[in-house]
Amino acid sequence: MGDTASEDVSNTLRILVATDCHLGYMEKDEIRRNDSFRAFEEICSIAEQKQVDFLLLGGDLFHENKPSRTSLVKAIEIFRRYCLNDRPVQFQVVSDQTVNFANSFGHVNYEDPHFNVGLPVFSIHGNHDDPAGVDNLSAIDILSSCNLVNYFGKMALGGSGVGEIAIYPILIRKGSTSVALYGLGNIRDERLNRMFQTPHAVQWMRPEAHEGCQVSDWFNILVLHQNRLKANPKNAINEHFLPRFLDFIVWGHEHECLIDPQEVSGMGFHITQPGSSVATSLIEGESKPKHVLLLEIKGNQYRPTKIPLLSVRPFAYAEVILKDEQDIDPNDQDSVLQHLDKMVASLIEKSTKTAEGRPETQLPLVRIKVDYSGFTTINPQRFGQKYVGKVANPQDILIFSKSAKRDSKVKF
Amino acid sequence: MGDTASEDVSNTLRILVATDCHLGYMEKDEIRRNDSFRAFEEICSIAEQKQVDFLLLGGDLFHENKPSRTSLVKAIEIFRRYCLNDRPVQFQVVSDQTVNFANSFGHVNYEDPHFNVGLPVFSIHGNHDDPAGVDNLSAIDILSSCNLVNYFGKMALGGSGVGEIAIYPILIRKGSTSVALYGLGNIRDERLNRMFQTPHAVQWMRPEAHEGCQVSDWFNILVLHQNRLKANPKNAINEHFLPRFLDFIVWGHEHECLIDPQEVSGMGFHITQPGSSVATSLIEGESKPKHVLLLEIKGNQYRPTKIPLLSVRPFAYAEVILKDEQDIDPNDQDSVLQHLDKMVASLIEKSTKTAEGRPETQLPLVRIKVDYSGFTTINPQRFGQKYVGKVANPQDILIFSKSAKRDSKVKF
Ligand SMILES: [Mn+2]
Ligand SMILES: [Mn+2]
Ligand SMILES: [Mn+2]
Ligand SMILES: [Mn+2]
Repeated sequence: MGDTASEDVSNTLRILVATDCHLGYMEKDEIRRNDSFRAFEEICSIAEQKQVDFLLLGGDLFHENKPSRTSLVKAIEIFRRYCLNDRPVQFQVVSDQTVNFANSFGHVNYEDPHFNVGLPVFSIHGNHDDPAGVDNLSAIDILSSCNLVNYFGKMALGGSGVGEIAIYPILIRKGSTSVALYGLGNIRDERLNRMFQTPHAVQWMRPEAHEGCQVSDWFNILVLHQNRLKANPKNAINEHFLPRFLDFIVWGHEHECLIDPQEVSGMGFHITQPGSSVATSLIEGESKPKHVLLLEIKGNQYRPTKIPLLSVRPFAYAEVILKDEQDIDPNDQDSVLQHLDKMVASLIEKSTKTAEGRPETQLPLVRIKVDYSGFTTINPQRFGQKYVGKVANPQDILIFSKSAKRDSKVKF
Repeated sequence: MGDTASEDVSNTLRILVATDCHLGYMEKDEIRRNDSFRAFEEICSIAEQKQVDFLLLGGDLFHENKPSRTSLVKAIEIFRRYCLNDRPVQFQVVSDQTVNFANSFGHVNYEDPHFNVGLPVFSIHGNHDDPAGVDNLSAIDILSSCNLVNYFGKMALGGSGVGEIAIYPILIRKGSTSVALYGLGNIRDERLNRMFQTPHAVQWMRPEAHEGCQVSDWFNILVLHQNRLKANPKNAINEHFLPRFLDFIVWGHEHECLIDPQEVSGMGFHITQPGSSVATSLIEGESKPKHVLLLEIKGNQYRPTKIPLLSVRPFAYAEVILKDEQDIDPNDQDSVLQHLDKMVASLIEKSTKTAEGRPETQLPLVRIKVDYSGFTTINPQRFGQKYVGKVANPQDILIFSKSAKRDSKVKF
């Protein structure tokens, strides 16, 4: 085979990877209500510009497992605008689609003859949009019933004992490239932990060898949505539990953007942690620039390209330990306020610089974590009043802690 | 023009009319949870069999204005199965579609190039699925955003005073037949009453005359969802408030099936009241057989054909005034129980006969309204225990009232 440019294109599967879009987050906040939708729309427009084969989402697409009418309508509108078009889909799903997509239609959305799907989306659920109720439905099932999303990775957890799951990959072919896409929607970490430690409780189904295609020819991707690193290992998934045949892992749920694929020593796979597209907690990890990943796979090779999200509201974060600051007098609250005001000013300035050249000007999020050991706290609402109209979150710029060492426990 | 059969077909607009489907009604009841969906699916299958041009719904499509995930998914699945197909749509919407359909796409659903709509559905909202919240969205907006329903008749009610509304018809042409379809989604009766009594508060927009088409050539239909007849006239809409240019009115909200069009004296129009497709209150009106209406319009003529719904759960209703019954002794509760048991048996038998020849056997709904003047009441739950597995509503077969004259007040 010659290695011409056009062969390259027809044999390269191009995936845009994003996660934790949290549609509907802060939908009642007058300033921030549209943030999640704006970022998601940017993700879709990147998928369009880059002409990817599909968009892959790692869970927490919706912030609530019962999204409001507004969130559903806005989400459906975005999917409809970006996913339905005349672009031909240039890959095939060759696995048993009724197994991959456990809805009442049982096929990948672009094969439905009554819809023009040009940008397929594949998504697992997270802990925010987890399936629940008598019918075990997720908010993503609503999008799946509309034929706008290919929802996969939903497991029927047996009742008694640890339970057993079998993970059947979506088998994707584009030219000479074969990708097995494994999805594992969020399961409570403790439970999944126990399952991983119980022999045969988690079965990874491998594609069968065919003529001209060996099992090792498949490039194996896993998308999951779990805690990754935690003080308490019972409450997180150890990367070493995952099988070594995997090549690439998309780790959802962790909101910090650590998108450059990291190798896991001794395991033979790399992990990307795209992070959320909207900051749902004002912690340091979320203040880092947000990205999505363009993943191009040809044969057993892949090329990751990170793409910054430019529509995300700027967020500047700082920490201060009051007793370490020389210009502060513990007996003079004004000196504390002056110091904090200076910090806010510099954070606003920093965020303005970050946002330079962006199409839209947005009020920044500003957060200062204040270690007030030896001091009294300040009322954060009162402190924020003068920043109304200057920052997006005047009511909670300041957060007080006693020990600078402790991280607050947050549910992503 | 000759009047051949094929010309007849190409000039006749055929509409299936139904209302108050209350999707999701009793969704937590193990026996009745699927009733609303079964009936709605039957309505859709009638639309398919009769090859109508479209399905017209008169509000309360959903029972809740925040439908559960299950209700949304089930509803979307039914719409998707029946509305998306390759049948050509044989009428045109010639009015300004951005005015008729106030969503962000602004066109009738079958004109969207990315969907194969073969059975268009037009629906107003009722009081159960009324628009609410900051964005004034109805549950029907979710179906509209999926392009499965053409939601019309949503009015922006001004803030101060009575308010003003302008009702723009959907102008529909099929061959030589022209239909102006006016929609008025539910507005609080008291408010709409005041509007009707305020000059110019309600503006009925008429189609403009064109060459070859006079204003009087349009056949004018109104769909509304309001109380029709009530003891308190402030709390219902007087038919005489409606303009005389109307030809035909579809009255939603009233659950009793009075589907044969009735002429309103002096007004020149007829009213059909299709009634609900699922009984949401066990009153006499709801025990009558449920129907939908096939409305065929050619020029200024129409032909109504009522079609029974055969999937509706049988419901038998009776009333008894204990003191008028000779086999009952007020001092002997057993004689009361025996009498009521006999009545239940006969209602079950009656419902069995009603359901003869139907494809599916269903437990019937049974209701006896008991005037117990001069007697003590019986615990309805205890009374119903022996009917578990025999009727669908063992817990509330009996309802007690003191005055046989009074009707209970129910919100449809
Ligand atoms: Mn999560
Ligand atoms: Mn998350
Ligand atoms: Mn109603
Ligand atoms: Mn109703």
